[in-house]
Amino acid sequence: MRFKNLVATTLIGSTMLFAGAASAQQAFGKAEDAVKYRQSSFSVLAHHFGTLGAMARGKAPFDAKVAAENADVLAVVANLPWAAFGAGTEGGNSKAAIWQEKAQFDEKQQQFEAEAGKLVAAAKSGDLDKLKAAFGPAAQTCKSCHDDFRTK
Amino acid sequence: MRFKNLVATTLIGSTMLFAGAASAQQAFGKAEDAVKYRQSSFSVLAHHFGTLGAMARGKAPFDAKVAAENADVLAVVANLPWAAFGAGTEGGNSKAAIWQEKAQFDEKQQQFEAEAGKLVAAAKSGDLDKLKAAFGPAAQTCKSCHDDFRTK
Repeated sequence: MRFKNLVATTLIGSTMLFAGAASAQQAFGKAEDAVKYRQSSFSVLAHHFGTLGAMARGKAPFDAKVAAENADVLAVVANLPWAAFGAGTEGGNSKAAIWQEKAQFDEKQQQFEAEAGKLVAAAKSGDLDKLKAAFGPAAQTCKSCHDDFRTK
Repeated sequence: MRFKNLVATTLIGSTMLFAGAASAQQAFGKAEDAVKYRQSSFSVLAHHFGTLGAMARGKAPFDAKVAAENADVLAVVANLPWAAFGAGTEGGNSKAAIWQEKAQFDEKQQQFEAEAGKLVAAAKSGDLDKLKAAFGPAAQTCKSCHDDFRTK
């Protein structure tokens, strides 16, 4: 079975990746494992987000195929970090406010996921204007959360 | 639009993530960015692979839903690191042999992807025996490549 064909097949199933991310938390034995996982998944996320941003901001030529490919990855990795902020996993460049003001943190996460979803759709539309329109609001949700919850 | 529902929609499209990973290479401006990306994506990959491994080796209770969720993520992230081994990106804990013996490295990558694809299918089958049978050969492809191409 060819692996790349499995990707589409796999994700059509009823299991949502969002749920997957939520229960992944069970698997972080130590706080430092959770810190490493969230930093790693944010790093991967930032790369694909940034590739779309470069096109949206005219720093890289618009290529509809590349935009769609990066959107496909973003659609998955945007869900991953959140499971790794469980109780007792303070550390890294996470402010303690994440755990002290969990409702606000969760709200920022949901705002990001909503805008990231719009960005994914826009990046797959083949229309640079749609990508440009969606990128700013999505980037703003990143910044808003970083301002409140990430150390400098 | 709810983001988690977008995931399935997104990946049913004709664009393959494998292709996405390949052209992502265009976006690594500096060698250290490529090194960080491959280390981060391997780290995320290892987490989900390891969660399946813990169940396969009896270190964690088998939970078919958790197995399937981790398989869904693995199906995507297993494709990601490879685009970040482009020419001129030597560094990190990558041996120079990766670039000197590129055909052998590519073959090891393909062996991993083939076995990872089988592991994904097994982990989604709901059958622990299938998961156990698929995990060992997949883990062996990791080890084989690390032995040849990763520094200690």
